[in-house]
Amino acid sequence: MTAVTTRVLIRGTGLIGTSLGIALTRTGYAVLLADPSPTAERLARDLGAGQLAHESAEQPDLVIIAAPPDVAAGAVAQSLSRWPSAVVTDVASVKGAVVDGARAAGADLTRYVGSHPMAGRERSGAGHARGDLFEGRAWVVVPAPESTESTIQAVTDLARAVGSVVTVMDATTHDDAVATMSHLPQIAASLVAAQLRSLDDRALGLAGQGVRDVTRVAASDPRLWTQIIAGNATSILEVLGRVHADLGELLGALSALADPDAPDDAVGSLEVVNRTITHGNVGHARIPGKHGAGPAAYLPVTALVPDTPGELARLLTDVGEAGVNLEDLRIDHGLGQPFGLAEIMVVPAAAEHLQQALEAKGWRVLD
Amino acid sequence: MTAVTTRVLIRGTGLIGTSLGIALTRTGYAVLLADPSPTAERLARDLGAGQLAHESAEQPDLVIIAAPPDVAAGAVAQSLSRWPSAVVTDVASVKGAVVDGARAAGADLTRYVGSHPMAGRERSGAGHARGDLFEGRAWVVVPAPESTESTIQAVTDLARAVGSVVTVMDATTHDDAVATMSHLPQIAASLVAAQLRSLDDRALGLAGQGVRDVTRVAASDPRLWTQIIAGNATSILEVLGRVHADLGELLGALSALADPDAPDDAVGSLEVVNRTITHGNVGHARIPGKHGAGPAAYLPVTALVPDTPGELARLLTDVGEAGVNLEDLRIDHGLGQPFGLAEIMVVPAAAEHLQQALEAKGWRVLD
Repeated sequence: MTAVTTRVLIRGTGLIGTSLGIALTRTGYAVLLADPSPTAERLARDLGAGQLAHESAEQPDLVIIAAPPDVAAGAVAQSLSRWPSAVVTDVASVKGAVVDGARAAGADLTRYVGSHPMAGRERSGAGHARGDLFEGRAWVVVPAPESTESTIQAVTDLARAVGSVVTVMDATTHDDAVATMSHLPQIAASLVAAQLRSLDDRALGLAGQGVRDVTRVAASDPRLWTQIIAGNATSILEVLGRVHADLGELLGALSALADPDAPDDAVGSLEVVNRTITHGNVGHARIPGKHGAGPAAYLPVTALVPDTPGELARLLTDVGEAGVNLEDLRIDHGLGQPFGLAEIMVVPAAAEHLQQALEAKGWRVLD
Repeated sequence: MTAVTTRVLIRGTGLIGTSLGIALTRTGYAVLLADPSPTAERLARDLGAGQLAHESAEQPDLVIIAAPPDVAAGAVAQSLSRWPSAVVTDVASVKGAVVDGARAAGADLTRYVGSHPMAGRERSGAGHARGDLFEGRAWVVVPAPESTESTIQAVTDLARAVGSVVTVMDATTHDDAVATMSHLPQIAASLVAAQLRSLDDRALGLAGQGVRDVTRVAASDPRLWTQIIAGNATSILEVLGRVHADLGELLGALSALADPDAPDDAVGSLEVVNRTITHGNVGHARIPGKHGAGPAAYLPVTALVPDTPGELARLLTDVGEAGVNLEDLRIDHGLGQPFGLAEIMVVPAAAEHLQQALEAKGWRVLD
């Protein structure tokens, strides 16, 4: 076992594997590439992700399994056995199934640590790979109970080398966390978007920013997500069961409210509806803000921007010249109009100053 | 009944009423304001929304009920009777309940047309009012079966005067459409966000763009939304019942997948999971793109932007100088890092040119 990893074998050259190869090569790691598809591994090589493993006589210090989630456990076990002094990690976004599967296959897990680089994209495949994919992203390092300290350190170093921010969690904590923070939002988005399949075009024409935001991730890859959801079925069941119960209670309340024969004012029903929205307020307020800096508490300054090249740039130049840092920006498009609304989020102390500065430069700022 | 409306009475001076008053005053309408709260109506006057109705001897040609949804029907009926030659409209975001309530109160609906200006904000109250609130937004004009042509025309003219894009629908079509396009996404966002209430901070730290997008509208006002959801219970029940059934089927599949004693590979379960995501893909693809111009088909060009004043402006200036129109922009924040990713959406033909142009100016463009 080496403390300093110099040679990495990446098994699986899809989006994540190829992106890792590019990033690690840039930072000085020697990277070997292997994929069941000769075309895929050559494409990764051509993109600068490393050299082909079968053309090298070198042995890896660290093996990264970047295969689909459902074959990760087998590949981990096989790699631990094949390279008896190498550290092995995998990048599947579900961790319990991998460690359980590898253990069931008789693997020695002292040299294994799971990884979850939280850097997926709505697109997949090596063709969309990029060396910056992990910059500034969370990378969850998931030790098995047996993992040695030097193994944990080697994987932590690797994650930091590609620019990620490391968080350490055990597999159960990780899987429960992503069930709520990632898999539940995906399922909710898909279920809402599915209702648009048979809607008529005039109704679809009423789409505002709300339905666009809620359903954005519904565009995700079904093959990958079927594996992720199936692989984390136990943790998802728990949180999704609670949502199903909440939804059932809301349906009961709505049935009472919709029923003209229900007892006068359907006692209790409005409380259920109100609680649904109020609990959402409370949960939403807990999401950390930009750069993990606590819940967002920015004020919006909204300006009207003509839909011609350079106008948004001119606006943001004026924001910069006002000496105000833009904390976030949302472009809100009108319907059938040649302009959009730019909502500039700034710290509260800067909002009034910015509004005045922009108006002085001739912008229409909505107050 | 007049064809050209010159004097408008706005009853209810919250966010929508006050914003309408400001917008209509600017375009030359004479606006009278009334609100049960003397403070609220004076605040609206001070904001430039019009003059106080009780200080004027004039009679309105058109009355806009901008009261909360649950009192709109009564106010419509009362206004039709009180001003026997005025056109009356209301801005409640649910329409069937208003027309039914007004008819039940014995109102003559020939001079009534419902309105739904789709221009809410996550904030409420006159203090957040703005005259541009309706610019480029959809305004659904909802005639009752009895509404005369000149009544429909007067309300259509009013909507266009404040910059809105008019769509005409009957009340049932409207209420079904917003149940799916607006109320369902709100409920889904609230139910997902509610699950974050008791989550531990480390799990919350894994928040990515997905959960942020899905839950953004969960910050909405519970008082308003309780009225909206209760007021559209019948239409929401239908679509929410389908979602509840889909969710129940998914839970059944996950139970089978999570059960170690289930028959080998839980036949059929993966199909259910895959179908959930695939149906979401299909529905999502139907959402019209920017400016109602058909589903979006833009390519992203992603650049790394330092988190200091003026950097984003400099990037967008360079985009403008490349002669490329930015179709949409998403700022994706890293975790604990002093920069963000700017995803610039452009028409496919412009993507490669823009990437080269930005790289030539020294930007790190992710490929």
